[in-house]
Amino acid sequence: MAGVIRDLTDAEARRALVCKWGEVPDDVLPAWVAEMDYAVAEPVVAAVQDAVAAGMLGYPRVGAGGPLGEAYAGFARRQFGHDVDPERVVPTVDVTAGVRLALDALVPPGPLVFPVPGYAPQLAMAEVTGRERLDLVVDPDAERAELDLDLLDHHLARGARALLLTQPHNPWGRAFTRAELEGVRDVVLRHGALVVSDEIHAPLVLEGAEHVPYLAVEGTADHAVAVVAASKAFNIAGLKCAQLVTTSPALHERLVSVPLARNESWSVLGVAASEAAYVHGDAWLAALRVRLAEQRTLLGSLLAEHLPEARTRPLEATYLAWLDLRAYGHDDPAAVALERSRVQVAAGHDYQPGLTGHVRLNIATSPDRLTEIVRRLASALT
Amino acid sequence: MAGVIRDLTDAEARRALVCKWGEVPDDVLPAWVAEMDYAVAEPVVAAVQDAVAAGMLGYPRVGAGGPLGEAYAGFARRQFGHDVDPERVVPTVDVTAGVRLALDALVPPGPLVFPVPGYAPQLAMAEVTGRERLDLVVDPDAERAELDLDLLDHHLARGARALLLTQPHNPWGRAFTRAELEGVRDVVLRHGALVVSDEIHAPLVLEGAEHVPYLAVEGTADHAVAVVAASKAFNIAGLKCAQLVTTSPALHERLVSVPLARNESWSVLGVAASEAAYVHGDAWLAALRVRLAEQRTLLGSLLAEHLPEARTRPLEATYLAWLDLRAYGHDDPAAVALERSRVQVAAGHDYQPGLTGHVRLNIATSPDRLTEIVRRLASALT
Repeated sequence: MAGVIRDLTDAEARRALVCKWGEVPDDVLPAWVAEMDYAVAEPVVAAVQDAVAAGMLGYPRVGAGGPLGEAYAGFARRQFGHDVDPERVVPTVDVTAGVRLALDALVPPGPLVFPVPGYAPQLAMAEVTGRERLDLVVDPDAERAELDLDLLDHHLARGARALLLTQPHNPWGRAFTRAELEGVRDVVLRHGALVVSDEIHAPLVLEGAEHVPYLAVEGTADHAVAVVAASKAFNIAGLKCAQLVTTSPALHERLVSVPLARNESWSVLGVAASEAAYVHGDAWLAALRVRLAEQRTLLGSLLAEHLPEARTRPLEATYLAWLDLRAYGHDDPAAVALERSRVQVAAGHDYQPGLTGHVRLNIATSPDRLTEIVRRLASALT
Repeated sequence: MAGVIRDLTDAEARRALVCKWGEVPDDVLPAWVAEMDYAVAEPVVAAVQDAVAAGMLGYPRVGAGGPLGEAYAGFARRQFGHDVDPERVVPTVDVTAGVRLALDALVPPGPLVFPVPGYAPQLAMAEVTGRERLDLVVDPDAERAELDLDLLDHHLARGARALLLTQPHNPWGRAFTRAELEGVRDVVLRHGALVVSDEIHAPLVLEGAEHVPYLAVEGTADHAVAVVAASKAFNIAGLKCAQLVTTSPALHERLVSVPLARNESWSVLGVAASEAAYVHGDAWLAALRVRLAEQRTLLGSLLAEHLPEARTRPLEATYLAWLDLRAYGHDDPAAVALERSRVQVAAGHDYQPGLTGHVRLNIATSPDRLTEIVRRLASALT
């Protein structure tokens, strides 16, 4: 069972995924929010059940390190060959809140650089932390989605104090290479800025690419914090536990010195689930990556057959495909697809305000459903 | 079973309450953090178990209202005779985060008035929301703990934009009367300020007092938001779900219009647990209040016998007794008690910086443990 990905039936998915499936009408196929239509890994479910049975529903253990730190450090070592000090693993409620915490606690006032298109809730991160947002926009016609280091340099010269990196990137589908990250490091170091690296998708780098933690790049220790979680890879976003990881003692000290009111909201069950995922989840995760790579291949065939004018870049990581559908002539293809064919994908303009003709498509479902999703998309758009 | 309060054994408590019991050595009796040494109500546990069994571990339903809104509205009507519009119940991750959200979203820049001694994490709320904190301090020698309306008036005249009310108050143990709240309202209205009313302890008003929601006071609708939760009364702080309640459409609209990055972190299991608590928890809650009132009586006897010089005001609400132990001559009686007698109470200076000789004592345990706690306190201090 450990290495088997079990597809949820529609009825199971509707009950389990109250946002992805529950927030759309019954006749709509959901391929929008980043959740997977797969049963949660057995060791993770068992850990949560054991915790509930023990009445573990109160405040979590406070502070950095502990079993959660050990669990993540082991996972990072096995999965990414990355050495993390367990004592420098700081719990927080989720990755977006962790990014906010890092910006509030570590970054002086000043603009924030943000790669766009970017994760929709984080488009507002600059505003929420009282900053101007300076975008690193990927040209929709660019062959490859790359960080524009000249523009990064320009933004930092203009006074930006931090880059919010998403590594791997959602919705670009990129896992940045070590050479690319070294390029980022060089520019950031030149300006004395900070990198907050959202690595929530790190376990979801697919065959053909590898995850390089930003903190695993030489010379990043003093200017970077990573925000990681088991939530995306193990489909447990509702359990509310992420982690901040630093290498620098000074940055760590500032993270753990914030008032409780900035960071006390993670869930005790999220801790239990994350520990189980990090310690006992490797086999399931390996099977998941195989399944997602198969879905990626299937998507390629389906697009070639049903939506031959769709453009998409190779999906190196995540289960979220970014589709350029401008050739079909709809400003908001997601809205058209929902109305005409009852399929819910995410609108591209949610990730890049003003962008037309793009959608983000979630492929983490069964082959049958993915086939039906693309078929419906094509039927609506063509 | 519904109306029975079951005491956890030491071994059960140590496993269940990983903060209260887990963060102290095995030979220390914990009476500090606000959790109860009682098994969680059966309908609440069952709801969480059912949700986990269904794989409900992903993102929660988004937005206001829904079953959670209906559940809270029913609870408020039955418990407090208070009419709440279910559609104006907005989920958030916990009460402290909800207070932060309300201040960020609703209150213009300017100082925050805060009754002191006050809930420790909220002492930093002004700082966290970029404000100056102006205190309403209760004189330790005052016969009764009351809100100083003249000082409130003075602070608001000085430019404060909001009062962070705690109703019932922790650690004062007060349930403010309607007349007192009307006094607050009159002063606040005079200055066009806002009230954020933390009502997390509302279900824990004990025999002899009653809970008056601030929003149930006439004329408060346009200047107040309540932050409520099942977490304290039902001992489920680790499940992460609280609710913001407004009566004003304009305030509600502003709360639900914030960027997701300000409010997307509540747990799907917290929602399930809260709904069960609000819908099926009345009998258990009634039994709990009886038990807590018994503990209150027992505390009175124990203090009279073992710590006759301790001063304490009548405990109208919460299970947190505020003890003035200055007569025993220790600046930090909590530290002395821990060192000499292995009992962990909360230090008064955590609730009022600079205050000496006070502790907050958690009475939500078994009669035997409470007896032993007071005995140990007396043995250490006298």
